Amino acid sequence: MRAEIVGVGTELLLGQISDTNAQWISQRLAEIGVDVLRHQAVGDNHERIVAALRLAVSRSDVVIVTGGLGPTQDDITREAIAAVAGVPLVRDRSIVAAITQRFARMRREMPESNLRQAAVPQGARTIAPRRGTAPGLIVQVGDARIYALPGVPIEMREMMQDRVVPELSAEVGPSGIASRIVRCVGVAESKIAEELDDLFHGSSNPTVAYLAGGGEVKVRITAKASSLTEAEQLIDPVADEVVRRLGDAVTGTQDEDLEVVVGRLLRERGRTLALGESLTGGGVAFRVTSVPGSSAYFRGGVVAYTGDAKRDLLGVSAQTIARDGVVSEACAREMAAGARRVLGADIGVALTGVAGPEPEDGIEPGLVWIGLDADDVNHARSITAPPDRAIVRRWAEQAALDLLRRYLIGARLPAGPSLV
Amino acid sequence: MRAEIVGVGTELLLGQISDTNAQWISQRLAEIGVDVLRHQAVGDNHERIVAALRLAVSRSDVVIVTGGLGPTQDDITREAIAAVAGVPLVRDRSIVAAITQRFARMRREMPESNLRQAAVPQGARTIAPRRGTAPGLIVQVGDARIYALPGVPIEMREMMQDRVVPELSAEVGPSGIASRIVRCVGVAESKIAEELDDLFHGSSNPTVAYLAGGGEVKVRITAKASSLTEAEQLIDPVADEVVRRLGDAVTGTQDEDLEVVVGRLLRERGRTLALGESLTGGGVAFRVTSVPGSSAYFRGGVVAYTGDAKRDLLGVSAQTIARDGVVSEACAREMAAGARRVLGADIGVALTGVAGPEPEDGIEPGLVWIGLDADDVNHARSITAPPDRAIVRRWAEQAALDLLRRYLIGARLPAGPSLV
Repeated sequence: MRAEIVGVGTELLLGQISDTNAQWISQRLAEIGVDVLRHQAVGDNHERIVAALRLAVSRSDVVIVTGGLGPTQDDITREAIAAVAGVPLVRDRSIVAAITQRFARMRREMPESNLRQAAVPQGARTIAPRRGTAPGLIVQVGDARIYALPGVPIEMREMMQDRVVPELSAEVGPSGIASRIVRCVGVAESKIAEELDDLFHGSSNPTVAYLAGGGEVKVRITAKASSLTEAEQLIDPVADEVVRRLGDAVTGTQDEDLEVVVGRLLRERGRTLALGESLTGGGVAFRVTSVPGSSAYFRGGVVAYTGDAKRDLLGVSAQTIARDGVVSEACAREMAAGARRVLGADIGVALTGVAGPEPEDGIEPGLVWIGLDADDVNHARSITAPPDRAIVRRWAEQAALDLLRRYLIGARLPAGPSLV
Repeated sequence: MRAEIVGVGTELLLGQISDTNAQWISQRLAEIGVDVLRHQAVGDNHERIVAALRLAVSRSDVVIVTGGLGPTQDDITREAIAAVAGVPLVRDRSIVAAITQRFARMRREMPESNLRQAAVPQGARTIAPRRGTAPGLIVQVGDARIYALPGVPIEMREMMQDRVVPELSAEVGPSGIASRIVRCVGVAESKIAEELDDLFHGSSNPTVAYLAGGGEVKVRITAKASSLTEAEQLIDPVADEVVRRLGDAVTGTQDEDLEVVVGRLLRERGRTLALGESLTGGGVAFRVTSVPGSSAYFRGGVVAYTGDAKRDLLGVSAQTIARDGVVSEACAREMAAGARRVLGADIGVALTGVAGPEPEDGIEPGLVWIGLDADDVNHARSITAPPDRAIVRRWAEQAALDLLRRYLIGARLPAGPSLV
């Protein structure tokens, strides 16, 4: 099965956005053994969209088009597909009903232009959107099949997962490429590569790739076999060895974010959490509460951005602030204890540091102290992140969630900047 | 001048990397007034590279190819270009000398394979690399010209800046494409399009595009002229009219995030802010503090995720919680007042609502109340967002920051779900 991806949107050609949809779709198709042989991108121009699609259906079995399905005048992918298929556009009543209901539910007036999205090429199948209003379209043109998906990444991804991947996977049959992602926090990518490289040296199946970013390293192990199960079986022993070698630095093998991992641990152990944040400004609380059901274990947090707030709301002593400053081990410990106390939680975690761009009280951007307080422990550790505001904040979040994870699994709690 | 960009590399088709080169090149060409009409990507396959280039030279004046110029066996762009141009590859002595010298300078043995990079299509001009060993190539094919550049972004960018941009810019003459982005909150994309469409109907210069997502709509106005300044001048009156028609819904014309806009307003007016967040879990505070220097106006926040925290930390009355529930107008007003009081700020903003996925106290996901408290006002408004946890939270953040913005500029404060 030969596949081709066509991105529609003048913003791609002006360089205002990168075609990350093409990358994401390519990954998903590779996983199920579908060969992507070409990408194309064209602007919001009828003639060129039609030409791109004609070419694509003439040489590919499956064409995935993204973009141009919205309600406005520059959304013309529907018309172009109808022209390529040689059929008229017809109004789909069930889509009209769905769009009308959506606006009614939000108690908003529905502009007539929204019904543009209910026009589908005659004979097309549709993919219902989980969110958004634009349905996806599946149109057969000769021997080729066009899947038209929204350009908004989250809507496109849901339709790929709900419909396109299962449908193509069933047709391609048992052939599988499996991947497993082992996620690690607190260890440098190059260090991890050194630890693991002999495992993969000279091996073309499974292969390994290291992806560093966002304050963590993902070790991706990929294997090919005649079925997904067999590919998974090739991965199993290698992944086990990777986990053994990296030890406590491994946060999980299910490609889960740290907030999901600690959420499950808190729930399993029946413990509750409170946060005291300074430089991260609520970023840790936001991640913890992004997990559905987090109200079962999350009590709340205090974003104590000023010295006064640290003292008044978290009970950090004036003496500590005067003696050690707000970016200090003592302050982090007291903030954690204070957050736990005022919010009535089992565990308190706190962060204080300098995000930058300017130094604070003579401390350079990048230094962060993280405190953890519970019945049996009052601990703090520091990290030193690269001096970029967004990176400092992200690394601080990661280190705080990881300190909590280590406490919950009974691992050694690090004191200094390095975990291993 | 019509341009087309062709990316070569199987890693693009496997989704292992995103084609950021295409985006960057597109931006540079737009700046000098060269229209990019298409992108293509193909793998390291001779036949398909040749086909992609044949197609490109048949329909474009300028073709920029990236990737496949390195020393290894899978670097076959040189051969493909020679085939398309119908000329043999010949060894370029000056490149042989440059590569040989480079290895000698590093005192490293030169693998013979490096000399593959000295093979150029007969008659080609070359672009000397500032770093790396692969030269760029300029090959005329009929009326079209192919520029072949390395796939490594930094090497590609240097050759674009050193040679391609100056050469094309001189040919195109004085010309420029400018864009302006007007950002709006609280109005549906389709409603905005209805308000504005007559402004752009039948106009091909400037043009308009609407990009909805993340709880806002971006209206992008693009114009072409014989210089960047003239293009800006074409945009000015249209942008002014767009802003006039959309009124208070416009958050800015500088493509700034709302947290940057409200940060500047707070600073200019010398006011300080405190937040009380429930369903957004610190998301608003995180955004406010993502702006460097926000400590000048941000006092802090309380993430009051439970009813107890709303009562104990923000002083919401037990009676309000019992009578109206925590997702109510009264609770939002009291949370805003409480946040302002406990953090000693001029303005308090608070959010309470149901993010989902499950209903809470019989209230469906999507309902959010936002409160604002200051010396002269205690106000609340509600919104109803699509019932998806991430979207509810994002829309709530946007509505809260926008309510603050409206208060700071003295605009009407909306009460209900709709802003216009």
